[in-house]
Amino acid sequence: MRRRILILAFGAALLAFAAIARVTSNDLAAIRSILDAQAAAWNRGDIDAYMAGYAQSDDTMFVGTDVTRGWAKVRDRYKAKYDSRAKMGTLVFSDLDLRPLGNDDVIVTGAWKLTREADTPHGRFTLIFHRRTEGWRIVYDHSS
Amino acid sequence: MRRRILILAFGAALLAFAAIARVTSNDLAAIRSILDAQAAAWNRGDIDAYMAGYAQSDDTMFVGTDVTRGWAKVRDRYKAKYDSRAKMGTLVFSDLDLRPLGNDDVIVTGAWKLTREADTPHGRFTLIFHRRTEGWRIVYDHSS
Repeated sequence: MRRRILILAFGAALLAFAAIARVTSNDLAAIRSILDAQAAAWNRGDIDAYMAGYAQSDDTMFVGTDVTRGWAKVRDRYKAKYDSRAKMGTLVFSDLDLRPLGNDDVIVTGAWKLTREADTPHGRFTLIFHRRTEGWRIVYDHSS
Repeated sequence: MRRRILILAFGAALLAFAAIARVTSNDLAAIRSILDAQAAAWNRGDIDAYMAGYAQSDDTMFVGTDVTRGWAKVRDRYKAKYDSRAKMGTLVFSDLDLRPLGNDDVIVTGAWKLTREADTPHGRFTLIFHRRTEGWRIVYDHSS
């Protein structure tokens, strides 16, 4: 009986600690490579591949002038706003700062810039990357 | 000996579970009342009281056109940018959306508007509230 309780107690301790997976340097590297992949996708005009960085969830949020909720709506917004290769231009991310928030979230702050024929729109962004079964994905994007 | 191991294992399980304090409706109410207190402080021209909503930490970040790091620098930025009662105007927060992120963080999305004699600047914000010893505090603010 006592042995059974001992095993149960160890099991519980193990489970509780296992739930706490800290953000490692590997996690941060994975997030950086998703951002690199997004910029590369954008720069070959592939918004669908760019969208792979976002969590395919109805909770995914994009805050710009308005608030857009849901992965599909965020994709639609990008496709409507950047409906030609010329409007997409060349995207560069810079000034990246990654800050773990608890064990399963990372805030990424940075600057974005589009170089286009006619202009160079630019600004700052805040992304929240969340650790999901499929990997790290953006669940929240505030771009200004 | 076995009894000692048993006690240790239970203790570890208890500690691990105790570390997981979920975000409750009380937590969300506490965050809303901090935002109310901030707006009230702003509207009586008291930037120091407004700043009580932010974590007094060197890690506190404000993202606007530029990035400002550290509670004191964030306060200095507010005091420089709004150096008269007329510039402060009347602040209203609206469209609040609170979203827990893990157990100790909450993303708050909303809109801000200043009503002033000459104009009505407005925009959106993303705040990260973190559960600290002294209570919930803003550790990250992106306002646009």
